[in-house]
Amino acid sequence: MTTGVRRRMGVEERRQQLIGVALDLFSRRSPDDVSIDEIAAAAGISRPLVYHYFPGKLSLYEAALKRASDDLAERFIEPQEGPLGARLLRVMRRYFDFVDQHGPGFSALMRGGPAVGSTNTNALIDGVRQAAYLQILAHLRIDRPPARLELVVRSWISLAESTALIWLDGRRIPRAELEAQLVHDFAALAAVSAAYDPEMADLLRHMLAEEPAEGPFTDLIGRLVSLAS
Amino acid sequence: MTTGVRRRMGVEERRQQLIGVALDLFSRRSPDDVSIDEIAAAAGISRPLVYHYFPGKLSLYEAALKRASDDLAERFIEPQEGPLGARLLRVMRRYFDFVDQHGPGFSALMRGGPAVGSTNTNALIDGVRQAAYLQILAHLRIDRPPARLELVVRSWISLAESTALIWLDGRRIPRAELEAQLVHDFAALAAVSAAYDPEMADLLRHMLAEEPAEGPFTDLIGRLVSLAS
Repeated sequence: MTTGVRRRMGVEERRQQLIGVALDLFSRRSPDDVSIDEIAAAAGISRPLVYHYFPGKLSLYEAALKRASDDLAERFIEPQEGPLGARLLRVMRRYFDFVDQHGPGFSALMRGGPAVGSTNTNALIDGVRQAAYLQILAHLRIDRPPARLELVVRSWISLAESTALIWLDGRRIPRAELEAQLVHDFAALAAVSAAYDPEMADLLRHMLAEEPAEGPFTDLIGRLVSLAS
Repeated sequence: MTTGVRRRMGVEERRQQLIGVALDLFSRRSPDDVSIDEIAAAAGISRPLVYHYFPGKLSLYEAALKRASDDLAERFIEPQEGPLGARLLRVMRRYFDFVDQHGPGFSALMRGGPAVGSTNTNALIDGVRQAAYLQILAHLRIDRPPARLELVVRSWISLAESTALIWLDGRRIPRAELEAQLVHDFAALAAVSAAYDPEMADLLRHMLAEEPAEGPFTDLIGRLVSLAS
């Protein structure tokens, strides 16, 4: 699969090309099933040359995961204007774009396994979770979250992960439905906490104060009320 | 630390004793920090004798994890009688007993890491999740769950895991509050799904039909209604 005519690339350019090729392969299949030979072939270079840039498959995997993590963390960034529900829904769309694009690799990574349980990969995953957490606090305009808010936000982030993983396993529910559902789930988990804690109740009121009638939060409340009656 | 007077144990008896000693140590500290020497000392036998029963630390860790998994799965078993909310609350209490008892080991395991990312440990974790899933379906008296119910149950199980992990990190919220909150979260996630899907709405009505006025589900609904007004 090499082209024969190999354009000379600089060291960093070649590294970046290899990372891109590897990320594409690691995304489309479980990383355990991707060989260095395949990566070399897809990059149009020899196997020894791959090893010249990366000492082994794990280091190439970690570099690819770093690029994917940075990409995902960037998708969480959303202008802090307009209703909160609509902001979160836009982030959920970009999150599912990412999950869709990297499906098999995302599943293999998040389910753990021989190639992916290293300290470095765990640190990258935690870094993305932390980026998501800090973004949400910034949108809520809260610097020092009470323990109950931290719990709601962090446990909702894990809910978003498991929802995406379950979706990838057969894709039996339309993803747009799940994007909206996760926005609703956030409000629901916050409401459960608010039902038993005055500080969370204040926070929830503040969060919902500027929601428009057509927003996802207001829509949910209307439907729940009609469900209850 | 060996006693000098070593009572002769049968092979299986000695294996079971070692597993118990190892589980205790792996529960109280991160498994990476527990050495075979310590396990040997705590069991009152020599290091070579440990290796006679288990080829290495990983196999002993896996045996200890198997025992803990079986123990946890047993705690999910609850008589299928009385209101659903009260049943789930009793299971949550036993779940937090387990988490409390095995805190550091549980955290290390669920957060992944060098000693715990093996294929066998992942299979044990998945086995416990599957046991929890099947128990819940049995209590709901549902054989073939629709995709949306499967999503609610499985994603709630992951929420229960992350809630326990966040609790262990500082124990800043009383565990009894979180046990009740997870019961409420289950109802809330089901309600969000039911708000947009008629099949889930039927299921939710069925689930709440026999809840008494003093049960956790009814209490939550009352509080949410008063919060909304």
